[in-house]
Amino acid sequence: ILPTVLVHGGAGHIRDDWVKCVKFGVKGAAQRGYKVLQKTGSVLDAVEQAVRVLEMDIHFNAGYGSVLTVDGDVEMDAAIMAGANLEGGCVTMARDITHPISLARRVMEKTNYRFLAGDGAMSLARNEGFEILPKGALVTKASQKLLQIFKTTNTDTLYNVTPGTVGAVAIDACGNVAAATSTGGLTGKLSGRIGDSPLLGAGTYADNKSGAVSATGHGESIMRYNLSSRVLALVQHKDYAIQQAAEQILKQMTKRFNQTGGLIAIDHRGQLGICFTTECMSWAYQQANELHCGVTVGEDEVEIVNETSE
Amino acid sequence: ILPTVLVHGGAGHIRDDWVKCVKFGVKGAAQRGYKVLQKTGSVLDAVEQAVRVLEMDIHFNAGYGSVLTVDGDVEMDAAIMAGANLEGGCVTMARDITHPISLARRVMEKTNYRFLAGDGAMSLARNEGFEILPKGALVTKASQKLLQIFKTTNTDTLYNVTPGTVGAVAIDACGNVAAATSTGGLTGKLSGRIGDSPLLGAGTYADNKSGAVSATGHGESIMRYNLSSRVLALVQHKDYAIQQAAEQILKQMTKRFNQTGGLIAIDHRGQLGICFTTECMSWAYQQANELHCGVTVGEDEVEIVNETSE
Repeated sequence: ILPTVLVHGGAGHIRDDWVKCVKFGVKGAAQRGYKVLQKTGSVLDAVEQAVRVLEMDIHFNAGYGSVLTVDGDVEMDAAIMAGANLEGGCVTMARDITHPISLARRVMEKTNYRFLAGDGAMSLARNEGFEILPKGALVTKASQKLLQIFKTTNTDTLYNVTPGTVGAVAIDACGNVAAATSTGGLTGKLSGRIGDSPLLGAGTYADNKSGAVSATGHGESIMRYNLSSRVLALVQHKDYAIQQAAEQILKQMTKRFNQTGGLIAIDHRGQLGICFTTECMSWAYQQANELHCGVTVGEDEVEIVNETSE
Repeated sequence: ILPTVLVHGGAGHIRDDWVKCVKFGVKGAAQRGYKVLQKTGSVLDAVEQAVRVLEMDIHFNAGYGSVLTVDGDVEMDAAIMAGANLEGGCVTMARDITHPISLARRVMEKTNYRFLAGDGAMSLARNEGFEILPKGALVTKASQKLLQIFKTTNTDTLYNVTPGTVGAVAIDACGNVAAATSTGGLTGKLSGRIGDSPLLGAGTYADNKSGAVSATGHGESIMRYNLSSRVLALVQHKDYAIQQAAEQILKQMTKRFNQTGGLIAIDHRGQLGICFTTECMSWAYQQANELHCGVTVGEDEVEIVNETSE
């Protein structure tokens, strides 16, 4: 198995003037994750660090640059999971921290719980020494503009300008997989709305027996369809190739609910799945010294990079 | 297919002096659900109304009688799902209402969201005319005593005295299934801890293609194992009988995580699954004029009841 780190920057439409930045972002995140995997040998470290890169990037709907609730606040969801022991950690209604994905990992590693919301999550963040930013520090001009559009126009317009949820999946040479997803959710959402991203089996799942998935798209549909679980069940029970499983399940979901989405996946054999029923989904992966990237259907740009440069 | 309503009152140990009351409770809930199914023809109504009976009953950890957070408050989780259209609704951190299961249903029917937490959920409750009880109204002497035990002794002791999560599954003559689960969670939990009950695919799931499941037990393990999804995947992809699927998956989970649980299920053919790796799980179902009930392994008391009496 070739060690691989595969990331996505969300399914939907990507603003023409952002395509370059979005590609730069996902490529940098894949490279960062891959370097960490080479260095620490941990797929959990790899997906966490890859997602952290995107949480810092204003062009994605996670961490800094998250979209806003109807009250103008940032409230973030995240989950991380390791396929070797099925350990996972999840947070929702996380506020005023740059890296919800790292808080999800602390839930997993430092508590008896696996899913914490709001004040419970924030109290852990403080105990674990996370920097608590001043209220509003994660709010960007772009996210404020989106909220304004939400409040004054048909919300369908938003689809064309909303940045994307981020996620990562990784595999090491021994077949250990991990998955991570982080998001600000929906522009104009009610405070307390939970999407699919922090739900194991919906937006995020990892099991060494089948593979790892991180999803993006219409959260309510992905939750109802239990998207990640369904994809991995086809791999485990029907011996589907992961790409075939992803395409079948995503198409079924899109048809049934008339809602679109996308996902990235790595199966237990190290095969990759990249699939979306939206117009675009930004993704990138590094495998040995090859860095692949795409945004539109069928696109696959390849660069040769130094495998171990820091 | 014989229309059936099957309920559980939680897996664990049941206090000797509570066994009678617990049996009375689950039997009453199954009967109530069955009557509603006969009357409205809706499996969603059936599971909602069955769970409402148990939420009102002090002998179960749901609604009135819920166990307390470390701060002494009641914070409840619930989910409801229909297998025909994969519609679902979920709430967490619900407070000061008797019937979180009905609030979960309103999330599904009255909002664009499918999972609401805390203030978001409570704001919906107010808008929907739910009676908001005074703070502390759901707290019982028994739950306060449990919290005291939690704070002063080894928490393992709690296992022997904790009331159980509640749930229901139902099927109609056409093969429509539904599932519902409601719980107060863990005694002494941190505010914001989310268990498996409100997570579709973990503690609750329904799909007419495979069946309906409501789980109970160690929430963090059920969440990580995606218990309901795994059981239904064996039915859908491997044509397992539901009882066999439930036993295999629960045993695997118990062995892998060294944590116990239980579940009730109805598959798409109307077969029932009742399974637990704990000492006890209270359950009951009505099918035509037979009312079945049990608490310990192998127990199956049968009564003949009037099929349509109100």
